[in-house]
Amino acid sequence: MTKIRVHSELHYTIGQPSSLTFAVLAAHSRHQTVLEETLTTHPEVMASRLALGPGLHELIRLSLEPGPFSLTYDATVELATHTTDETPAAEVQFGEVPIEALAFLNPSRYCESDKLGRFAMRTFGDIEPGFERVAGICNWIYDHLEYVGGSTNSSTTAIDVLVGGAGVCRDYAHLGIGFCRALGIPARYVSGYAVGLEPPDFHGFFEAYLDHKWYLFDATRMAPVDGLVRIAAGRDAADVAFATLVGAANLDQKVVSAHFDDARPPDHDAPPAVTTA
Amino acid sequence: MTKIRVHSELHYTIGQPSSLTFAVLAAHSRHQTVLEETLTTHPEVMASRLALGPGLHELIRLSLEPGPFSLTYDATVELATHTTDETPAAEVQFGEVPIEALAFLNPSRYCESDKLGRFAMRTFGDIEPGFERVAGICNWIYDHLEYVGGSTNSSTTAIDVLVGGAGVCRDYAHLGIGFCRALGIPARYVSGYAVGLEPPDFHGFFEAYLDHKWYLFDATRMAPVDGLVRIAAGRDAADVAFATLVGAANLDQKVVSAHFDDARPPDHDAPPAVTTA
Amino acid sequence: MTKIRVHSELHYTIGQPSSLTFAVLAAHSRHQTVLEETLTTHPEVMASRLALGPGLHELIRLSLEPGPFSLTYDATVELATHTTDETPAAEVQFGEVPIEALAFLNPSRYCESDKLGRFAMRTFGDIEPGFERVAGICNWIYDHLEYVGGSTNSSTTAIDVLVGGAGVCRDYAHLGIGFCRALGIPARYVSGYAVGLEPPDFHGFFEAYLDHKWYLFDATRMAPVDGLVRIAAGRDAADVAFATLVGAANLDQKVVSAHFDDARPPDHDAPPAVTTA
Amino acid sequence: MTKIRVHSELHYTIGQPSSLTFAVLAAHSRHQTVLEETLTTHPEVMASRLALGPGLHELIRLSLEPGPFSLTYDATVELATHTTDETPAAEVQFGEVPIEALAFLNPSRYCESDKLGRFAMRTFGDIEPGFERVAGICNWIYDHLEYVGGSTNSSTTAIDVLVGGAGVCRDYAHLGIGFCRALGIPARYVSGYAVGLEPPDFHGFFEAYLDHKWYLFDATRMAPVDGLVRIAAGRDAADVAFATLVGAANLDQKVVSAHFDDARPPDHDAPPAVTTA
Repeated sequence: MTKIRVHSELHYTIGQPSSLTFAVLAAHSRHQTVLEETLTTHPEVMASRLALGPGLHELIRLSLEPGPFSLTYDATVELATHTTDETPAAEVQFGEVPIEALAFLNPSRYCESDKLGRFAMRTFGDIEPGFERVAGICNWIYDHLEYVGGSTNSSTTAIDVLVGGAGVCRDYAHLGIGFCRALGIPARYVSGYAVGLEPPDFHGFFEAYLDHKWYLFDATRMAPVDGLVRIAAGRDAADVAFATLVGAANLDQKVVSAHFDDARPPDHDAPPAVTTA
Repeated sequence: MTKIRVHSELHYTIGQPSSLTFAVLAAHSRHQTVLEETLTTHPEVMASRLALGPGLHELIRLSLEPGPFSLTYDATVELATHTTDETPAAEVQFGEVPIEALAFLNPSRYCESDKLGRFAMRTFGDIEPGFERVAGICNWIYDHLEYVGGSTNSSTTAIDVLVGGAGVCRDYAHLGIGFCRALGIPARYVSGYAVGLEPPDFHGFFEAYLDHKWYLFDATRMAPVDGLVRIAAGRDAADVAFATLVGAANLDQKVVSAHFDDARPPDHDAPPAVTTA
Repeated sequence: MTKIRVHSELHYTIGQPSSLTFAVLAAHSRHQTVLEETLTTHPEVMASRLALGPGLHELIRLSLEPGPFSLTYDATVELATHTTDETPAAEVQFGEVPIEALAFLNPSRYCESDKLGRFAMRTFGDIEPGFERVAGICNWIYDHLEYVGGSTNSSTTAIDVLVGGAGVCRDYAHLGIGFCRALGIPARYVSGYAVGLEPPDFHGFFEAYLDHKWYLFDATRMAPVDGLVRIAAGRDAADVAFATLVGAANLDQKVVSAHFDDARPPDHDAPPAVTTA
Repeated sequence: MTKIRVHSELHYTIGQPSSLTFAVLAAHSRHQTVLEETLTTHPEVMASRLALGPGLHELIRLSLEPGPFSLTYDATVELATHTTDETPAAEVQFGEVPIEALAFLNPSRYCESDKLGRFAMRTFGDIEPGFERVAGICNWIYDHLEYVGGSTNSSTTAIDVLVGGAGVCRDYAHLGIGFCRALGIPARYVSGYAVGLEPPDFHGFFEAYLDHKWYLFDATRMAPVDGLVRIAAGRDAADVAFATLVGAANLDQKVVSAHFDDARPPDHDAPPAVTTA
């Protein structure tokens, strides 16, 4: 059991009446318990919480008038993370993939898995199917990409980053998802908080569906194995933006942090971040 | 009320043990009643029907051994299609879009709406928001694309077809969806049967979320307004392939048809296909 | 006859021994006479001038040691610009295009004319071939793009800008070239100095081969018809970068200007910039 | 010294008055002597030969009336091919690249070298610069691509094939060129005849500029080292199409062959095709 305190602050200047949704709430799941949380806004406004469905995340929805606006979120989260046991997780045959996971086999905006089949088979086809293969994908990505802030943008795809050779967490996750789907492994994008992230920010990683569970992978190796707090999951980053707005709002400041509750420092020498979600 | 008889036959040679899913069943919805249907396979195999969720479509899932295989589907469907009434359907403000429609605002593999904002605003920004604007998008697509069989392939996107100037039904739908989402209108891809399609095949069109309902649009003008029978809906064609397989299977023959039950011929001079779904 | 004084200064910090080429010299051509010019560097280094061939531009080539470096160029240029006369320039039939212009019919890195044929024919096919058609292309580009500094980058192509709807001078030229070649009109990219450019910088425009001459077009309408001084021509911007370097050099400052010698202000109400080059 | 007999026949049906250029003539160069050649057409028409410049290839240009048309070319060519000697060819420093080779450092339509820098440096940066590095590029391409006829088309680029993992000779050459340019090595596309090609067709390979000479490379390993007869060179395949036409002509049949004059069979176990051109 690990307790993590997460915090985010978003400060805006609203230019005209605007509608916004935020995906910053720590998710409630079997493996992640939100012990306490507070959400405050300045000025105070009515905020609805919208649940995207069982097992999926919640959004905050607001309507805002012109002027300064800030949203602050604090939570203490308990993670029942377990690392994989001795018997490595196997791939799930296509005929056994449950219907709610099928969509995560399809290509998406930033994960063009339909074009990566041959590349993925040649590069990862000889690795033992299952957990080991996805770990192999993460290792390959770690070895073949440079983490360079600002090297990519909001339209960068898995293929762009495969060719370009550099990216940020979101790009690492997209490439991992692209390779998994190309190999027939359902995979989805997860946004979250991460202990020890430098510079501090929201983080992006991914999950692969193995052995009838979603396993968490982070090819960036930027956060310790048990320091990832889930916010939202979707087909790729397009589904889990921390803020979406229609209107006019300028993000003046963003503050994000995550710490172990017992103040122990993140162990960056931990094995690659892999947990049952 | 319109009654339509639909029929599809898929003949395969299976080369090795394979898993397949099919999306060929007429959907059950408030506006589409399946009066009778039969699904047969040769040889007879166990076929499970998997429902993707309330309001979503059903898949057929099969496991097949090597040898010839065919699947035949027949249904009689009653459509409670209504064309739009005098009060044109309005766009739904972002703050009012229900949570289950939010994902249909996001860009997807074949609909890169994130790149089309400026183009869409310049081209359609002056049209009255709502039904009229989506109809304007369809008219523009009809005027600016040539319908050329074989001009595109399974990796062709909305942007490719916008630039290339030619495509098939799937491409028309993707471009319509791309423009809608770029303008803040939720839109989704629909596969189906269509009366009078020439050459006969499965058809692809799209729906836009207006006035808190999904409205059907077909920019190809290839089928009459009341001759579209829905099979499946998804973010784009990646979600609704008529067949998905893992293994080895060769599609030897595909036969698809749709007819009005009363044998009246399709009226191709009907107004552009727009119906409340 | 028009006299224009042009000036450019490039200030670098060289980090390691580096080789550079510069394309900043005013070109010598039948229609552009360089009355006087001075090129100075600090520190003084040996600079070779390399002519790319008859009718083509000259490069400056330097080898630099670490430390500050600056290059300053001043020239007074006389332009024998004539605007088109009454008989509009006709397109040159493919069988009559001289061999040295054939390469300017081929697609290039930033001008994917091979993909634009249908779009170009539908949009410009009904315009009178020749000068009028290319002017029509420029007008269309002017109407359909927004000039937005920083909206594109060094990998943006004609298709990107057609879809994205915004760009800078380089993008306007690439799109014009792409449409021309798609219609069978040889077209090439030209870099230069431009009177009245705001903000001052190097400029990019293009030439189309009509009536056995190269005609100058500037779809941006940012400089007066007789205020464009040619530096270099190539297939697209890839061929005419103002500086190319191998090594490590940081561009600290760039100063560019162009003025009519008689101090008259640029006439921005002049007709679209079109001149025989 | 090697003698090779080459042959090509192109049979067309011309639908309307058309202009065509052909690039099928064996090139004349220091290392390739055309001992005899015949060019015949049915019906007989005036064909001009156009030289693209010193060291470059010649085109045939024709105007044709509707009806059947065929062009037949036969030549006997003597190659003074030498394989590299003991001292491996070194890379040429940027400051020493002659002006006529500079353009072959720039990205082109099918060789987006501007996007491949990081990938190329990571993959080939540790190989000894010069001949060995380009050979390493060819070996990597051979190992990482599958040769699959029909897997690509006329708009496929180096990046497409890098990601897609399959292609034909043209694609192998484009990727080789892309990597070379990304590493600062001038590289150009060469079309030609190749002994022992299966199935027989025109062939595409590339040259890299090393040690102040152009060295020939063929990453496909489909033809023996001394069996490549050059037709044309250019920035990429866009520059050297065997036929370019404006009008309407249908290519009914294409026959291409190349044989050693002494009837010895091609030695497919020869080292990778590398020759001084």
